[in-house]
Amino acid sequence: MPALPDPIVRLIAALRHLPGVGPRSAERMALNLVQAPTEETTELAQAIREARERVRTCSVCGSLTEADPCAFCTDDRRDTSVICVVEQPVDIFSIEKSGTYRGRFHVLGGKIAPLDGVGPEDLSIAPLRARLADGRVHEVIIALGTDVEGEATSHYLSRHLAREGLRITRIAHGLPAGSGLEFADQLTLARALEGRREF
Amino acid sequence: MPALPDPIVRLIAALRHLPGVGPRSAERMALNLVQAPTEETTELAQAIREARERVRTCSVCGSLTEADPCAFCTDDRRDTSVICVVEQPVDIFSIEKSGTYRGRFHVLGGKIAPLDGVGPEDLSIAPLRARLADGRVHEVIIALGTDVEGEATSHYLSRHLAREGLRITRIAHGLPAGSGLEFADQLTLARALEGRREF
Repeated sequence: MPALPDPIVRLIAALRHLPGVGPRSAERMALNLVQAPTEETTELAQAIREARERVRTCSVCGSLTEADPCAFCTDDRRDTSVICVVEQPVDIFSIEKSGTYRGRFHVLGGKIAPLDGVGPEDLSIAPLRARLADGRVHEVIIALGTDVEGEATSHYLSRHLAREGLRITRIAHGLPAGSGLEFADQLTLARALEGRREF
Repeated sequence: MPALPDPIVRLIAALRHLPGVGPRSAERMALNLVQAPTEETTELAQAIREARERVRTCSVCGSLTEADPCAFCTDDRRDTSVICVVEQPVDIFSIEKSGTYRGRFHVLGGKIAPLDGVGPEDLSIAPLRARLADGRVHEVIIALGTDVEGEATSHYLSRHLAREGLRITRIAHGLPAGSGLEFADQLTLARALEGRREF
């Protein structure tokens, strides 16, 4: 039986890399795309390229931004005495949407996971320590997921960042266990931020 | 609060056009894409463009193909005396996957829907009649969805294609009511093809 045309097969394979896209939805998307108006597909292809080219990582905090340093790091109205530590850049936008935080951010870039060969030196911990060096930051809020690696990383940070005059807190366990920040709704995240507690 | 960078906002908007992609999954995909390896995003953008440029519609049956006429129309091992009528090109691949059909296809390009202003003249019905003119086709299998428009279109076809020596059948009502071919699994489609009955 004749198979799908090659370009469609390749498109399906490329779409499968997207998060949450299985074989069936990739197929539906691909078949939809080859029949969509050309402007629409051009726009999507263009948007993908542009986003990849123009969005970079902030050299200070690690967030996604067009300008470096990012708006979170340069906005004077934000509290410079608090840093919220997150795993990935996406987590920043989840926290922003909760509307309960007005300080700075720091993206770790992962979690300590010995089984996957990820140690503390693979994460952005030294740059975080450097940001704390001048003593102007009074609180570090650790906002990592509640899975095993997230817990281990939180504890590691609480021990290794500890210093006279620095509060180290973590967001409350309002997150469902074993889940990441990206799946939490705004209210859960707002509650979690409000209920943060001392290590 | 600083919003998401503009290129990400535009990418989210473009991804929303994909079938089955809501605001949250578009956001997750976009944030994932801007952090993916450049090769991966280039590959996806490229695959979208290529599929759109290289995949065309077969001038005989209306299926998606790189070569015109398509492999379904030119494959001598397929039965030339049966034509299966479907709504959209995607439906052909659903039927092919069921593995129970070895004839030709014809894509109507839609369903009769008076409320949306779609009449029989807007569908590929005249070309279908032309394909039946030489009398070599002995059976037309109507394989449309079981929603109201699909039913109406099936009945319209059964009346207007009727001719001495031509069997007009439709696939069995194994499909869940109100659903389209694209959501049916292979077995359901196979059963529906096997159980087709005379109008």
